[in-house]
Amino acid sequence: MKLHILGCHSATPRSMVFPSSQVLEINNELILIDAGEGMQIQLRKYKHKFNKIRHIFISHLHGDHFYGLVGFLSSMRLIGREKPVHIYAPTGLKEITELQFKLTQTDINYPLYFHELSSNESELILETDHYTVKTIPLTHRIYTNGYLIQEKPALRKLNIDAVRQYPEIETWAYHNLKRGKDFVREDGSIIPNEELTLPPPPTKSYAYCSDTIYKPDIIPLIKGVDLLYHEATFLEIHKDLATKTKHSTAKQAAQIAKDAEAKFLVVGHFSSRYPDENQFKKEASEIFENVDIAVEGKSFLV
Amino acid sequence: MKLHILGCHSATPRSMVFPSSQVLEINNELILIDAGEGMQIQLRKYKHKFNKIRHIFISHLHGDHFYGLVGFLSSMRLIGREKPVHIYAPTGLKEITELQFKLTQTDINYPLYFHELSSNESELILETDHYTVKTIPLTHRIYTNGYLIQEKPALRKLNIDAVRQYPEIETWAYHNLKRGKDFVREDGSIIPNEELTLPPPPTKSYAYCSDTIYKPDIIPLIKGVDLLYHEATFLEIHKDLATKTKHSTAKQAAQIAKDAEAKFLVVGHFSSRYPDENQFKKEASEIFENVDIAVEGKSFLV
Repeated sequence: MKLHILGCHSATPRSMVFPSSQVLEINNELILIDAGEGMQIQLRKYKHKFNKIRHIFISHLHGDHFYGLVGFLSSMRLIGREKPVHIYAPTGLKEITELQFKLTQTDINYPLYFHELSSNESELILETDHYTVKTIPLTHRIYTNGYLIQEKPALRKLNIDAVRQYPEIETWAYHNLKRGKDFVREDGSIIPNEELTLPPPPTKSYAYCSDTIYKPDIIPLIKGVDLLYHEATFLEIHKDLATKTKHSTAKQAAQIAKDAEAKFLVVGHFSSRYPDENQFKKEASEIFENVDIAVEGKSFLV
Repeated sequence: MKLHILGCHSATPRSMVFPSSQVLEINNELILIDAGEGMQIQLRKYKHKFNKIRHIFISHLHGDHFYGLVGFLSSMRLIGREKPVHIYAPTGLKEITELQFKLTQTDINYPLYFHELSSNESELILETDHYTVKTIPLTHRIYTNGYLIQEKPALRKLNIDAVRQYPEIETWAYHNLKRGKDFVREDGSIIPNEELTLPPPPTKSYAYCSDTIYKPDIIPLIKGVDLLYHEATFLEIHKDLATKTKHSTAKQAAQIAKDAEAKFLVVGHFSSRYPDENQFKKEASEIFENVDIAVEGKSFLV
């Protein structure tokens, strides 16, 4: 998995910075997470193919997280999209988007599915051959979810040296061995799978948490996550403002990463009040060392 | 008057080009015309102050002409806008915008007025102290208006040498002389205004025509306009495509400028199929010499 940042700033407009949007590359697919205004321009800039996006996750219905969506969906029509698109978002996005299509007389001629969310409990909302997606209920001024994307275990690897010691294991049996099954001889005796295969590489996981107050009760959900993106709109000197606007500070984001035993933390959604965004890294690193700041165009290997 | 191009491309997404949006600078005000996605980013980039915008004109409800509006209106709330904003647009934009404000729980706390348009005749839709705005009915796949912005005549200039020959004309009379009134002596006799003043500088006018088929019946409306912006989505080799999609070619835009006796033509709204946009200038200049292409960040003095 690889995370690519398209935009990582809060709503107040600044010259040439973009609001929240990112794509997670997984198994030759791109998962789009949030869709701030201009995100289709950023996709082009960083050469991410529109057609690789099948699943879109919107955290909450504040404009800086979804105003780029409708233009992107319209553009996909223009470039001849045929494959289905699935959107997971709070209830309401379907109504907004369909009204825009109606009034702009836009006929979306590829299959488009909205999966509207309203639960305050974590839910498994998507399971593919390669990964699962669960919601992470967050607390902001409006109904908000983060998303936890977890790879599924890959196939076990054949231990060729071990397999070759048993001439009765022919190649047709490899399919089941890779899937963890024991080998059963014609006489009914068994060669245990562990003797013939090696475990697959460990699975990776990514958690996206934006926007939210400091919310330690998400920690069990994201325990041990490989990469955590957590919003840090403010620095600790503006902790009161963070509490008031239901955002987090860099220090709070780092505390979540530390307590969740995340492998790495990326912070973003910076307020425009700070001229030097490295301050966010500095503040967070005092609590949690493995941290970096989101930067447009930057990628992070999970 | 001065025209500043923020974006001038058609809807198909390209790296780092923006869809239709421009501001017309007039008497220390900025008139926003169309609002494609990302236009607030462009306003910041080219250092146009949000607060100078009081009147917004949207030509039609295709996304590449208005998807940047709602984010801009939301941003003005964030930066503490207090002055009213007036939006002139086809019927429907109010419904879309208000639904977005409702679902994003955005409380627009400055006065925001929608003036919805549905007439197929040219209308005077705005008159200020300094200028008037009339619609230019266009023909596209959806209800569309261009806009004609005309300066009002300035005050006449005092001919000081002439005025001084009449000691009976005191300074309190200048106010009326500048407004074209004759001077009336106490005995009722008259000194004609023409003898005492010089005409004001000629007024300027700007016409915005996008998107539209080739439509010669707009010519009487824009006759003698100082600056004409006319869409040229295609080159003449794709004239059939222009007709089919209800757009114009560069040659057709030039023909309109020529027949309307415009002083200068700017073409824009280029399709992404053409790698070299100078082809539009070349084609148009064969019909009408005073022509240039729109470029993001470029300004044209009216």
